[in-house]
Amino acid sequence: MTRNELFQHIQKKQSYLCVGLDTDIQKIPSHLLQSEDPIFEFNKQIIDATHEFAVAYKPNIAFYEALGAKGWDSLQKTLEYIPKDCFTIADAKRGDIGNTSGLYARAFFDKKTSGLDFDSVTVAPYMGEDSVKPFLDFEGKWVILLALTSNTGSSDFQQLNIGDNEKLYEKVLKVSQQWATPDQMMYVVGATKATLLQEIRKIVPEHFLLVPGVGAQGGSLQEVSQFGMNSQCGLLVNSSRGIIYVSSGKDFAEKAKQEAQAIQQEMEGYLSKYL
Amino acid sequence: MTRNELFQHIQKKQSYLCVGLDTDIQKIPSHLLQSEDPIFEFNKQIIDATHEFAVAYKPNIAFYEALGAKGWDSLQKTLEYIPKDCFTIADAKRGDIGNTSGLYARAFFDKKTSGLDFDSVTVAPYMGEDSVKPFLDFEGKWVILLALTSNTGSSDFQQLNIGDNEKLYEKVLKVSQQWATPDQMMYVVGATKATLLQEIRKIVPEHFLLVPGVGAQGGSLQEVSQFGMNSQCGLLVNSSRGIIYVSSGKDFAEKAKQEAQAIQQEMEGYLSKYL
Repeated sequence: MTRNELFQHIQKKQSYLCVGLDTDIQKIPSHLLQSEDPIFEFNKQIIDATHEFAVAYKPNIAFYEALGAKGWDSLQKTLEYIPKDCFTIADAKRGDIGNTSGLYARAFFDKKTSGLDFDSVTVAPYMGEDSVKPFLDFEGKWVILLALTSNTGSSDFQQLNIGDNEKLYEKVLKVSQQWATPDQMMYVVGATKATLLQEIRKIVPEHFLLVPGVGAQGGSLQEVSQFGMNSQCGLLVNSSRGIIYVSSGKDFAEKAKQEAQAIQQEMEGYLSKYL
Repeated sequence: MTRNELFQHIQKKQSYLCVGLDTDIQKIPSHLLQSEDPIFEFNKQIIDATHEFAVAYKPNIAFYEALGAKGWDSLQKTLEYIPKDCFTIADAKRGDIGNTSGLYARAFFDKKTSGLDFDSVTVAPYMGEDSVKPFLDFEGKWVILLALTSNTGSSDFQQLNIGDNEKLYEKVLKVSQQWATPDQMMYVVGATKATLLQEIRKIVPEHFLLVPGVGAQGGSLQEVSQFGMNSQCGLLVNSSRGIIYVSSGKDFAEKAKQEAQAIQQEMEGYLSKYL
């Protein structure tokens, strides 16, 4: 999916919501455990219920990998089930030396070898340019590079000063822009504070930002939208647990739908106000 | 496997060789492609041929993941086939926010859910303490944290100065020592230069170091051994392509054996000289 196509879907659905499919076998409603593939069955119902209000889906690969080969099957079925007008993100946080990153790229982008064909994959920047580039060799695919994450550990290294009054995550944003255009690269920015977002937008005015940590983790969708939006929206705001685990009963999909719709309606307001 | 047990195996085999199972379906001898599971068949023959001379095996997960669910099956069979006196490393370079890292830990450590039961997993430090800690909750398991990698991209961020004359990878070594003892944590150090290794040993005198980039990638085993060894050896030196792809013919296992044996004999000399 190209940047323009993504923007068109955002305009059409009046939403920049990404639904995180952090599907945990220990957390899904118990009545699903009888089905042949409970993980896929849960995802299928969540996707059916929310795709009208979401422009992207983001399975976190850890949840599938924890189940071994079976989890990989559930992931493949889930990806195939996601409607084609939704942007798909393999939240894998991979990164290895060049030839190995090329294999991870095949794992997530090359349907022929792995069965998977995501639009994008999240990548950790620690190993530098040659660990990121192999993902960019796949035409039409995206790298979503970790810049500033929303967990407490982000203060350990990401927020340390590198050189003169510049933080590591800012350096990552600046350096990595030389590796790819805003048509191939997005950034994970777990920033919900207005001042931080304004600073980040000075460094990466055009790129899409994938913003976690809104909702359940306490960030303000209003601030993210006001200070993070650019002329093509430039935002994908993720909610995982806040949507998929609203209810643990038989009404889980209906409740997820209501939550997704509520977020979409809030986003519709911000799109008319800030775009 | 405990640190003492690992040291005992090193002493018994007179080797600190780790064989990297970077098994690429496109590179293995063509006569294996007829077998039911060519990846496992290749690994099985490599393990049979080399385990006398190696104390550790390190499958790089990318190579298996690139094949989807099938690759995951090959990985599981490979892990089960590795003799119990060898330390096993899932070279996965994972790292995510806390609860998600917990799932990656289950993926590599918890046989019940994933089918896999590695001794250790490589983890990227970018997301900080809470991305690393969940792996340490598994008793008897190890984290091998990326500090300084051997690829060219290591200069992009790892080798930048943080604060006063301290590089990011040195900061990673210092800060992460507060998270775990040398009985739970090792470091990836792709350093083959004597001066660099001496500096690193000042920061982490007791930890085991997993050193890639020796042999095929041009590093000197002699320098690594002289300047990297501590009183419990403290080194696992990895060779992947330099062992498993010496020959692409039917004699690939025999050639791998000769290469592993040659390295073991060189290591035996360094153990008697520097330990």
